[in-house]
Amino acid sequence: MTDTPRRVLLDEHELPRHWYNITADLPEAPPPPLHPGTHEPIGPDDLAPLFADALIAQEVSSERYIEIPEEVRDVYAMWRPTPLIRATRLERLLDTPAQIWFKYEGTSPAGSHKPNTAVPQAYYNAREGVRRLTTETGAGQWGSALAFAATQFDLECEVWQVAASFQQKPYRASMIRTWGATIHSSPSELTAAGRQVRERDPDSPGSLGIAISEAVEAALADDATHYALGSVLNHVLLHQTVIGEEALTQFAKVGLTPDLIIGCTGGGSNFAGLSFPFLREKLAGRMSPHILAVEPASCPTLTKGEYRYDFGDLAGMTPLMKMHTLGHDFIPDPIHAGGLRYHGMAPLISHVYELGLIDATAMPQTACFEAGLNFARTEGIIPAPEPTHAIAAAVREALACRESGEEKVILTAVCGHGHFDLSAYDAYLSGELVDHELDTDQIAEAMSRVPVIAE
Amino acid sequence: MTDTPRRVLLDEHELPRHWYNITADLPEAPPPPLHPGTHEPIGPDDLAPLFADALIAQEVSSERYIEIPEEVRDVYAMWRPTPLIRATRLERLLDTPAQIWFKYEGTSPAGSHKPNTAVPQAYYNAREGVRRLTTETGAGQWGSALAFAATQFDLECEVWQVAASFQQKPYRASMIRTWGATIHSSPSELTAAGRQVRERDPDSPGSLGIAISEAVEAALADDATHYALGSVLNHVLLHQTVIGEEALTQFAKVGLTPDLIIGCTGGGSNFAGLSFPFLREKLAGRMSPHILAVEPASCPTLTKGEYRYDFGDLAGMTPLMKMHTLGHDFIPDPIHAGGLRYHGMAPLISHVYELGLIDATAMPQTACFEAGLNFARTEGIIPAPEPTHAIAAAVREALACRESGEEKVILTAVCGHGHFDLSAYDAYLSGELVDHELDTDQIAEAMSRVPVIAE
Repeated sequence: MTDTPRRVLLDEHELPRHWYNITADLPEAPPPPLHPGTHEPIGPDDLAPLFADALIAQEVSSERYIEIPEEVRDVYAMWRPTPLIRATRLERLLDTPAQIWFKYEGTSPAGSHKPNTAVPQAYYNAREGVRRLTTETGAGQWGSALAFAATQFDLECEVWQVAASFQQKPYRASMIRTWGATIHSSPSELTAAGRQVRERDPDSPGSLGIAISEAVEAALADDATHYALGSVLNHVLLHQTVIGEEALTQFAKVGLTPDLIIGCTGGGSNFAGLSFPFLREKLAGRMSPHILAVEPASCPTLTKGEYRYDFGDLAGMTPLMKMHTLGHDFIPDPIHAGGLRYHGMAPLISHVYELGLIDATAMPQTACFEAGLNFARTEGIIPAPEPTHAIAAAVREALACRESGEEKVILTAVCGHGHFDLSAYDAYLSGELVDHELDTDQIAEAMSRVPVIAE
Repeated sequence: MTDTPRRVLLDEHELPRHWYNITADLPEAPPPPLHPGTHEPIGPDDLAPLFADALIAQEVSSERYIEIPEEVRDVYAMWRPTPLIRATRLERLLDTPAQIWFKYEGTSPAGSHKPNTAVPQAYYNAREGVRRLTTETGAGQWGSALAFAATQFDLECEVWQVAASFQQKPYRASMIRTWGATIHSSPSELTAAGRQVRERDPDSPGSLGIAISEAVEAALADDATHYALGSVLNHVLLHQTVIGEEALTQFAKVGLTPDLIIGCTGGGSNFAGLSFPFLREKLAGRMSPHILAVEPASCPTLTKGEYRYDFGDLAGMTPLMKMHTLGHDFIPDPIHAGGLRYHGMAPLISHVYELGLIDATAMPQTACFEAGLNFARTEGIIPAPEPTHAIAAAVREALACRESGEEKVILTAVCGHGHFDLSAYDAYLSGELVDHELDTDQIAEAMSRVPVIAE
């Protein structure tokens, strides 16, 4: 065995007691969201029909630490703290002097980091008397996380899944039903938004935009029903900071500090959850890690998008958020890392990026699957396609260390396992996966439809 | 949070250093396996073409403890020690004064307890110069475990999967390929055994019996190739005792001893792995747990089978083993717990059962899925269909405690997650699953073809 432990575990009592709100430590506050009609800053009242009061308060809070309720910690304790694992076998394969550590979030019931926010969202809603939650899901990661969380607090849960995924990937839907939630193929006949689409196109494959509209419509139609979102918003990023807080404690146990923190970014919640607590330490001068966001080359919001006010959804019904965007109607190529195919980036991450506190890079999917395969064959864990982006960047950095001789300590997160993505690995192994050329014309066209806001 | 920890974790250095060989502590040794032709006891030489010397030595060893090689512990440490978890939410649902604890083996790379033996089997073979391992697999649990283990020791691995599963459940095959192994649909054109079947029936759905024949034939055809088996044999049960040894340490940490230990049984390796270390303590008078094996009502080898010498495979090519059997050509109903559909029971477990050291019960599958669903909705983890049998029995015992007021400490094992079995949960939820009437005529007929051995 290696001398230092390979898995750094924490006991239940070491589970963080607070989430970390980075806005408290930023030199300037991020720009506020705007009403889609009036272009005026929106207030809590605008959000009340959809979200629990406690979540709206967290969305706009400037408190540094927000206490994690005991009831939420009690559910977290079913799988948290998650292990911090050193990828010694991968290091050996790469023959690198670098250390590669990863925080593994695949041990949660739903197999990803998503329950970290699904659980508090369900808890606060249940506490405020809500009886049903609605949401949308693409491949099903978020929908299954919310279904699990809802069953813990005796909430009903209704999920609209993009029709194409509903048909092609039935297993996440089975998981959602196993946890007692209801799932609909979107567009459905249950909402005006769905019926409208089906009238025009009875065989519509659906889209996240349509599914959001359906879930929101269903939530607005019933006072006892709220809506839940799995990424992008401040309170979602907040809840995910348990990942980074645990990792800080774990590194302290083995007397290390990371030199480089690498996370994959779609909406941004996993990246923020891993890195923001370390960014706090960096801002306070207690450590100095380099922080790197990795996005897919086919959906490069940070590296190729503009920092503009834009809608969060395809249909332009959500508040306008200032964020890195490729245009709200930009449709990225159908890469396998479905969780990273979002046209925008969380406003908070976009803001932090503009402040120069983090870096970003983009990775093509075949390089990611190559790294994912090497990871699976050395570390045993088959990562979901999303974290292979971070792994690919970590591998690149570790190989650079082989050249330079640097003994960098690299931290990344494997934010989910790939048990429901094995057909993607098959496609890679049989040479069917390709890297799509980025369609810059499509981006330019999508950006031309982003509203111009006078600031 | 509850006062006692819900998850009892062990550090890497608490990983067991020895496997436990129960034959050392039994009042009499189990009857020896016999040569299928001569009916004489077989010796190590008979097994040498298929198995590594170290494994053959373990198969016949009477040493109480066998050291786990450092190289094996180093791979175990990727996911072991596994957590011991108290099912507090399930207890609450059942309103029982009993404590229900489960050892969770689903955190292994392959998602089940199977790597506990796949890893040492790969290790010893690699150490003895073997370059390739062959095996058969049904639904794919064992095949994927061996593929993972082989990649850790740079062995080639070739898996014959029963054609029906190969076609209907492609994801385990993808997993096997992701770990770099080769997989064939069985019957294949690669072996005489396979070709023979295909000649008669080009569309044969295959069977475990045919797949075993193919894997054994391929191993015999090449000096650098050995065969690996995932259950039934003594050395396989031996390797699984890490489960029980860890659980003993974990219970000691919280100052508890189990009153009742419940495991599901197919070939028997998971049950033996969990219970044999506790049985040692019981035999030594240090604790007195009741030990219960749970088998499917449609394949009740312990409760309805005879204790006889019989073949391990359908075709009658393996050594004769004295075991509880329903007849080597008995084909159980196609229940979803494929891992429990074996006509015989491990000779060592059969022997221990005959000695009166353990009890057995049989459970119909709908009751098992009902328990599995309640477990998933309370504890978050979706169990594979196999461990739902043990969960169902644990629930029954916990409900009995509600009646009697007894505060029993129940221990069971969730030997694998159900991520690749979600269609079975769907079938249960939609009311499609039924309990098959046990075909006693078929058993009687199969038993009539079991050879009569003069003892």
